[in-house]
Amino acid sequence: MAKRSKSRAPSAVVSAGAQELRLFSIPGIPEIRPGNDLVKCVTSAARRAAIHFAHGDILVVAQKIVSKAEGALVRLASVKASPEARALAARLKKDPRAVEVVLRESRRMVRSDHVLIAETRHGFVCANAGVDHSNVPGHDVVTLLPRNPDRSAKKLAAALRKRTGKRVAVIISDTFGRPWRLGLTNVAIGASGVAVLRDLRGTRDRQGKPLTATILAVADELAAAAGLLMGKSEGSPVVLVRGYRYASVDQPAARIIRPAVEDLFR
Amino acid sequence: MAKRSKSRAPSAVVSAGAQELRLFSIPGIPEIRPGNDLVKCVTSAARRAAIHFAHGDILVVAQKIVSKAEGALVRLASVKASPEARALAARLKKDPRAVEVVLRESRRMVRSDHVLIAETRHGFVCANAGVDHSNVPGHDVVTLLPRNPDRSAKKLAAALRKRTGKRVAVIISDTFGRPWRLGLTNVAIGASGVAVLRDLRGTRDRQGKPLTATILAVADELAAAAGLLMGKSEGSPVVLVRGYRYASVDQPAARIIRPAVEDLFR
Repeated sequence: MAKRSKSRAPSAVVSAGAQELRLFSIPGIPEIRPGNDLVKCVTSAARRAAIHFAHGDILVVAQKIVSKAEGALVRLASVKASPEARALAARLKKDPRAVEVVLRESRRMVRSDHVLIAETRHGFVCANAGVDHSNVPGHDVVTLLPRNPDRSAKKLAAALRKRTGKRVAVIISDTFGRPWRLGLTNVAIGASGVAVLRDLRGTRDRQGKPLTATILAVADELAAAAGLLMGKSEGSPVVLVRGYRYASVDQPAARIIRPAVEDLFR
Repeated sequence: MAKRSKSRAPSAVVSAGAQELRLFSIPGIPEIRPGNDLVKCVTSAARRAAIHFAHGDILVVAQKIVSKAEGALVRLASVKASPEARALAARLKKDPRAVEVVLRESRRMVRSDHVLIAETRHGFVCANAGVDHSNVPGHDVVTLLPRNPDRSAKKLAAALRKRTGKRVAVIISDTFGRPWRLGLTNVAIGASGVAVLRDLRGTRDRQGKPLTATILAVADELAAAAGLLMGKSEGSPVVLVRGYRYASVDQPAARIIRPAVEDLFR
């Protein structure tokens, strides 16, 4: 296999004109169980790693541990599959009870020919409506997406403020696939304290020409950046982003969902 | 409007367990013209900003300046619109000559009801086939995507190696929209020296369960991370990523294009 590269000279001195962004993975987050105080776990782990929160930091938290802390877990033994789930499961060679959970989490099935791509009750379009069995203890338990990821993010930000005294924005992320391009990327499904969309309409480019159609999905770019340090098998479910200049407003990640009337690919 | 936050305490000490990623925007890149030596411009600007390249760094370069250096520019005065372009332009209230350029760059029009979403000759699906007039001097000139962005990335990586003595991977990026979610994110359209997809199938999660369907589009996550420092009106078109552990192989970004037979959204 390919060799792995790692920077060996991290001592760049950056002049006033350069912007610098730093991301730290927070190691040592324990296995999270329902009812655990997630912010306490994160701040303890950060302290052990000598990572100190600062005003303007952005904490990106993988959905999985938020769901676990909130108890958004389903034991498949407790699920009775509907005839619809059984039919779909037979065709896709999946566990009918897992398919039943996906159907319950879905507002609408977008595709169900090879894989289940669903619109979740929140409005996100993703595989299996976010129902997932990776990184869950036991072979019989699946996680759901948090009921209201924006509310979860808001609670985490408030608890972080209380515990650290710092104004830290929070993004809850998950890895989603997408049409046209292979591979998953980490995206924002919940947010608090950071403008998730950066609207540049009305501003001008470097030549002074007005920009007409430029809205940047910065929360998704922040989630993607953090995703580089998350991995699935190694890495940490919690990453701190430092040095990003952002509009510190409470804009829910639900704002990123493209309204159905504007969406050409439904 | 919202106030902007900036970290004021960037002196975190990170323990052995934490991974750190650093991104530097390289300021002072001049306006690039056809025939300019892009790597010379970038390394000169980096030197002025006291940013020194290191083995394993990844340079993310906005498509726009690659296209300019390669002369992938079209003066609209030189374009004669076809009847098809004129009809489409009338419906969309666009310049027929710009629409003509979009049609020439396209293999297939994916949607043309409100906006032009095209599959480019490379296979990328994006607005206007990547034809763009922002950040181009003059009101009559549009940029095209580089003819072969993977080849462009390879040339840049080779020239960087020659000029700096360091093995630096290169990603050429552009901002693309996507279905279901609002806003643009920066993605990879060309790459050299970095595995663009990270295939975790066959590896295990933190609980030891095999991961079955996990391929991460790391080149897109790297582009997105860099996008946070690029902006359109301010920021720099060149961002250096340091500290990311990656498979140092030559895998073209064209690999990210989802094969038509697998794509459920054509």
